[in-house]
Amino acid sequence: MSVLIKDVLVDGKEKDIYIESNKIAAIREAGSSKGKIREGEAEVVIDGKRKAAIPGIFNGHTHAAMTLLRGYADDMPLHDWLTTKIWPLEARLTDEAVYWGTKLAALEMIKSGTTFFNDMYWYWESSARAVEESGIRAVLSAVFIDGFDEEKAKEQIIKNKVLYEKSKNLSKRIIFALGPHAVYTVSKESLCWVKEFSERHDLLVHIHVSETKEEVEECKKRYGMRPVEFLAEINLLSSRTIACHCVHLSRKEMELLKQHDVKIVHNPTSNMKLAIGQMPYEELKKTGLYSNIALGTDGCASNNNMDMFEELKIASLVHKAFSGDPTSIPAAEAFALATRNAAKIFRLNSGIIAEGKLADIALLDLRKVELVPNHDLTSNIVYSANGSCVDTVICDGAILMTGQKVKGEEEIKEKAREVAYELMSMSGNNKKE
Amino acid sequence: MSVLIKDVLVDGKEKDIYIESNKIAAIREAGSSKGKIREGEAEVVIDGKRKAAIPGIFNGHTHAAMTLLRGYADDMPLHDWLTTKIWPLEARLTDEAVYWGTKLAALEMIKSGTTFFNDMYWYWESSARAVEESGIRAVLSAVFIDGFDEEKAKEQIIKNKVLYEKSKNLSKRIIFALGPHAVYTVSKESLCWVKEFSERHDLLVHIHVSETKEEVEECKKRYGMRPVEFLAEINLLSSRTIACHCVHLSRKEMELLKQHDVKIVHNPTSNMKLAIGQMPYEELKKTGLYSNIALGTDGCASNNNMDMFEELKIASLVHKAFSGDPTSIPAAEAFALATRNAAKIFRLNSGIIAEGKLADIALLDLRKVELVPNHDLTSNIVYSANGSCVDTVICDGAILMTGQKVKGEEEIKEKAREVAYELMSMSGNNKKE
Repeated sequence: MSVLIKDVLVDGKEKDIYIESNKIAAIREAGSSKGKIREGEAEVVIDGKRKAAIPGIFNGHTHAAMTLLRGYADDMPLHDWLTTKIWPLEARLTDEAVYWGTKLAALEMIKSGTTFFNDMYWYWESSARAVEESGIRAVLSAVFIDGFDEEKAKEQIIKNKVLYEKSKNLSKRIIFALGPHAVYTVSKESLCWVKEFSERHDLLVHIHVSETKEEVEECKKRYGMRPVEFLAEINLLSSRTIACHCVHLSRKEMELLKQHDVKIVHNPTSNMKLAIGQMPYEELKKTGLYSNIALGTDGCASNNNMDMFEELKIASLVHKAFSGDPTSIPAAEAFALATRNAAKIFRLNSGIIAEGKLADIALLDLRKVELVPNHDLTSNIVYSANGSCVDTVICDGAILMTGQKVKGEEEIKEKAREVAYELMSMSGNNKKE
Repeated sequence: MSVLIKDVLVDGKEKDIYIESNKIAAIREAGSSKGKIREGEAEVVIDGKRKAAIPGIFNGHTHAAMTLLRGYADDMPLHDWLTTKIWPLEARLTDEAVYWGTKLAALEMIKSGTTFFNDMYWYWESSARAVEESGIRAVLSAVFIDGFDEEKAKEQIIKNKVLYEKSKNLSKRIIFALGPHAVYTVSKESLCWVKEFSERHDLLVHIHVSETKEEVEECKKRYGMRPVEFLAEINLLSSRTIACHCVHLSRKEMELLKQHDVKIVHNPTSNMKLAIGQMPYEELKKTGLYSNIALGTDGCASNNNMDMFEELKIASLVHKAFSGDPTSIPAAEAFALATRNAAKIFRLNSGIIAEGKLADIALLDLRKVELVPNHDLTSNIVYSANGSCVDTVICDGAILMTGQKVKGEEEIKEKAREVAYELMSMSGNNKKE
């Protein structure tokens, strides 16, 4: 398909953007005669007047289907929350539930301008099916937990080999990755298999790292070293490693992350809500890791939405507040975390609006009150906007939303509601609506 | 006017709400025959299906017209930001600018379900005119700054007397208050006049208190005591005092606030953005001040929007994060800060949906993706929703928004833009759009 977006603001100037297949084929000054793109050349023409084009946003770490658990359990001590609420409910998940939960998440992301997410969850094939249908782009990993049990480890390895093979037949928008959950849930032997397999097939490795103090203490007990040291020891640190959270790091661990070019995803809202501490952002930046950092919402049980605009603001605010320095994470730096940096981290040819890049684009409606006046669009995006300022979303050259409408959204919400309430009623909880 | 909202969720149950003049006259179970409200009885009928009624939200502290400065200057050290950006620009404000800035703010608040704000700004009459027209409710105070200059003090006193008299002829939605800016900008003599005048006329006193460390140090130098101690000394602490920010408080000062039943407005986002510290929320709560605390956005130069849904989430998150306790400020507690508590603080018969209360109501659209599923509406409001989930707003019995549309909104945005860019061009800055 070919799409022409006419008269749209790109970096403060009115331009025409011409999309051919899944790429940005040309960007021209609006109204210039030289190299002007003619309407007739495009199958679809979008009026970009009073809109601004920004790269589709990257959600660097989530568990998409957890949208089903939004608002199900909050404001609890972490351990109680996990053991009495989240895990028992997750144990009752089905293929169907994950499918509709992921569809709901994809819908929420599209509505708020996100065109990519990095996921780790149960029922990989259901997530993949939801991504396939929704038109969004994703790195998908199956939760790999063996609980230090040899039999389970074998199962997990077989499952991942099968899924990797199956992923080859899916849309290029879906990228298979390995998802070893964390050092306290996966055996050393399995982590070594992950290292081998990911190296052999050049796969990303999505892992939770040092999210809580308890995790660090447990690792020190089990292996006599801290999590990042241990991961270095078994050679699981590489430029393909996506280490999420990274809240509790020693100086030495930061150096190790830098040395191995490890990628890091920061989840400020989830970290705040669970009160587990904050990633040492400024220190990681000083270690030279800035361009290795992306931002993520985490799952909806601990956020409780997937609005990356909110995440941008909270990321900037929390580090200003914790450091006492109002110049920490200025707007443009926050925005890059969720676009340019993330694209590099997830090895995608996108994250900026430029010729030759993937056509993953969100159009902001500049008439939204939060974007008035428009002294500085980046500031407005980071500090004032929310996801509802997004009018149009294009991913891989396909139009997923125009005028804030996504095809089939009412059915998705209806089914996701049903599935969510069914999960609750199975657990003896009552629905409220 | 009379309005019937049919089949709307109120505290989890489907109800009919009948509004007569500016009050909630009756609430009945939807479909019940007993005392059922008939459509014919109301001049306007609103379909409340798949909507939830919540009290109109209170924005406890702002400088509304600063919407004009949204995104104009961010990420700067506080002193530079004030002296090189904010104050020089404010010095060029006009009647016209404040009028359109306040209209824009009122529009943004209505769009995000806020029906009340507590304001302190320049050009009081322009703000009042904007509030009068917009239909929102407000406590309005003129910035009272004398810079320790006797002549200016006299002027300010005369001005406030005049405004107080004028306010008597305005709509009951507008409540006149005194706005002594802070102890470092207003002389002791003027503060004593504020005390007298506010006591005589039973007026609220809106003041910034201990927002920064510098303010506390300066006060100790000038008066030999901390700000709250000084305010107690001159008898300016009372149940009519609205102390905003209250970031740097000693134990003794918290006791003084409690002893005098002082009201407190917390502005977590602004405090984070300017990196000035956080209000000791949990300690104030322990001091018995919980029901005296409201929430505010502060002005758009330091937030940069007026979305109280965002403020609810950030308030809860920041205290969880700072205290390391995920049970701090649970959802219902946060919500009460911006509704029930605030109504009490600003002495309004509202803040809950009940018969006999003022008809200040927001209807949430439960079909919005952020509100799906709806396991717990209060959790969804605080942790997942943003202002765009509001569909309908009623204030003082008048319908200000339906289907997310506010009358005249395009003109307001257009004019506010013009005025904002004019202010910038006067200061040698260029507009971007």
